[in-house]
Amino acid sequence: MRRVAVIGVGISRFGELWDMSFRDIVISAGTEAIEDANLEGREIEAMYVGNMSGGRFISQEHISALIADYSGLASINVPSVRVEAGDASGGVALKEAYISVASGIHDIVIAAGAEKVTDVGSASEIMDSTIDQEWEAFPGASLAGLYAMMARLHMHEYGSTEEDLAGISVKNHKNAVKNPKAQFRREIKVQDVLSSPYTAEPLKMLDTAPISDGASVLILAGEDVAGKYTDTPVFIDAIIQSSDFIALQSRENILEMKAVKTAVRKALRMSRCELNDVDVFELHDSFTITELLLYENIGLCRHGEGHMLVREGETEIDGRYPANPSGGLKACGHAVGATGIRQAGEIVLQLRGDASGRQVQAERGMAVNIGGTGATAVVSIFRR
Amino acid sequence: MRRVAVIGVGISRFGELWDMSFRDIVISAGTEAIEDANLEGREIEAMYVGNMSGGRFISQEHISALIADYSGLASINVPSVRVEAGDASGGVALKEAYISVASGIHDIVIAAGAEKVTDVGSASEIMDSTIDQEWEAFPGASLAGLYAMMARLHMHEYGSTEEDLAGISVKNHKNAVKNPKAQFRREIKVQDVLSSPYTAEPLKMLDTAPISDGASVLILAGEDVAGKYTDTPVFIDAIIQSSDFIALQSRENILEMKAVKTAVRKALRMSRCELNDVDVFELHDSFTITELLLYENIGLCRHGEGHMLVREGETEIDGRYPANPSGGLKACGHAVGATGIRQAGEIVLQLRGDASGRQVQAERGMAVNIGGTGATAVVSIFRR
Repeated sequence: MRRVAVIGVGISRFGELWDMSFRDIVISAGTEAIEDANLEGREIEAMYVGNMSGGRFISQEHISALIADYSGLASINVPSVRVEAGDASGGVALKEAYISVASGIHDIVIAAGAEKVTDVGSASEIMDSTIDQEWEAFPGASLAGLYAMMARLHMHEYGSTEEDLAGISVKNHKNAVKNPKAQFRREIKVQDVLSSPYTAEPLKMLDTAPISDGASVLILAGEDVAGKYTDTPVFIDAIIQSSDFIALQSRENILEMKAVKTAVRKALRMSRCELNDVDVFELHDSFTITELLLYENIGLCRHGEGHMLVREGETEIDGRYPANPSGGLKACGHAVGATGIRQAGEIVLQLRGDASGRQVQAERGMAVNIGGTGATAVVSIFRR
Repeated sequence: MRRVAVIGVGISRFGELWDMSFRDIVISAGTEAIEDANLEGREIEAMYVGNMSGGRFISQEHISALIADYSGLASINVPSVRVEAGDASGGVALKEAYISVASGIHDIVIAAGAEKVTDVGSASEIMDSTIDQEWEAFPGASLAGLYAMMARLHMHEYGSTEEDLAGISVKNHKNAVKNPKAQFRREIKVQDVLSSPYTAEPLKMLDTAPISDGASVLILAGEDVAGKYTDTPVFIDAIIQSSDFIALQSRENILEMKAVKTAVRKALRMSRCELNDVDVFELHDSFTITELLLYENIGLCRHGEGHMLVREGETEIDGRYPANPSGGLKACGHAVGATGIRQAGEIVLQLRGDASGRQVQAERGMAVNIGGTGATAVVSIFRR
């Protein structure tokens, strides 16, 4: 297995892109990535695409073929693979693309993620298809409702508050102001979050990531060929996917994300570093409670102490563990299948020093992308 | 890259399985495969699942996590990846599983395919989501309609007839009688096909594969570990995926399947054999015209001669190119995402000599799985 470098990054605008079709959005990100990598389309040997629900959002399956075609890659018969793992689809696509390069099968591969959600009115119902239909959704639970239960339990067990959760949203909005691709580039106050309507008590509208249109594209290359294209390769030191029971009811402790824990442990081992060596994080904040639970399950603090990190500002951009300098899912936007790739793209920009107003001084970065309530986790560690 | 062996095969019943849920069907095939491979679930290191439209057929995305959970693999945090490529989903899942073993990342991996379609009434409309929505479906074309155009053109250019197409259906029904897993285990006559109602003229109901419930599971192992589990490993000598324009209108010649041609050429090169060395074929007969066009595009005959193979019985089970001894999609059943794995499973059974009443004497076999009208093709070559 050889090392794999990211040599190009492209991120579309995130938001309600009513002037763009699914294919327009993908092409926007893809063109940016190809220009960034300074290569020609014909040099691409394979494509992996994370997409959660083309079937329900835009009535289109066979997304792999569609994207290969509209990227000009069908004419050279490039294999294209769509992967789906709920809102971890992008992370899993990145992992598969990584394997195809690390193994030596391909030299240059696209890892993409894309979703067009605002053409339908039932987007939040479609997001509920990431949880167990038979044991969770049909009996009446929603994705937001399950996370609300986790939040309630955390508050009850550990004394965290709605204000603590709001603090995460406030931080992510503040960071997004400096991200030109972000959906919500405006600061908000704790009081704004607290007075926004409940989506599932105690979670409120401003605790909840939007469901956005958007696409992200990374171009991966084997270490031995990367130098031909860039002087600033960023290496994927580790990428690990792991799983947990899909339904919350099957888990021993609903505040413990075993897929995340396993993946973090293996990723640190694979990259031969400690958590303290990681300088910047992109964390899956589908809800504010998700980011808080990730602090604990990654190991930035012990279980029951996540809200202390918020209170002490440790995850602010100038804190000890800068989390979501991009603005995260909450403020940069959550284009479902694109998110895992977008997170990785932010880490790459940070490590290259290309994150202008939101720059963290960083040599290593970690992205954590999860599906649903954590049944799928993908953890990746990058190094410049 | 090391060689990869298939050490276990499991195939559920195919058909209208109203007494089984999606997860029941997967477990049925998975249990059979694990018993066949003589291993314990805990030895499995990763899972790849082909599924076309869980989102629309059963309102469930995050299929990867669901299947890992219900297979008992979530408890050991095994990574699980769903891939989608229309009705080539199974083939693409097999390719990804193959790469993960060939590369040495994993030793023992599940390649599965599954679909539960009969819980909804709109299954054929959902199948249309494999074609280009904006340029084909929304203007009024259906998957059947596009294949009907291909059939019409073939008849016009080369003098093939509706009787020729019917002959393919008759052959596949005859083979299915001997396949205990097949959906339609009864012989039909050319006249039955000709007098069945049109689905899209000149294609009729009995030219058209059903849309079935079903699942298939293969267990793959690295050559160096396969011997621990079986005395009859079947090796994947080659597996190649390729792409073509998704919309027919973009192709120079709608009777030419460039993805198939490219994949066959590369697969033969990878396996270091000639087409004449292949003794048995499983071909994607979503419609009878699909199988006929595959004869030509694989290279069993020249363009415009596919119907001559039918007339001369060359693709009968005792002919020169036995095609679809399982009964094919038409008579074994077409459980969409399961099909590519089911085809591979049949080839493995044939090469092991485990295909009882439908046995072909074979050392090498080829499976050809395509998505939609051929925008995705996966060609694999197996050897005992």
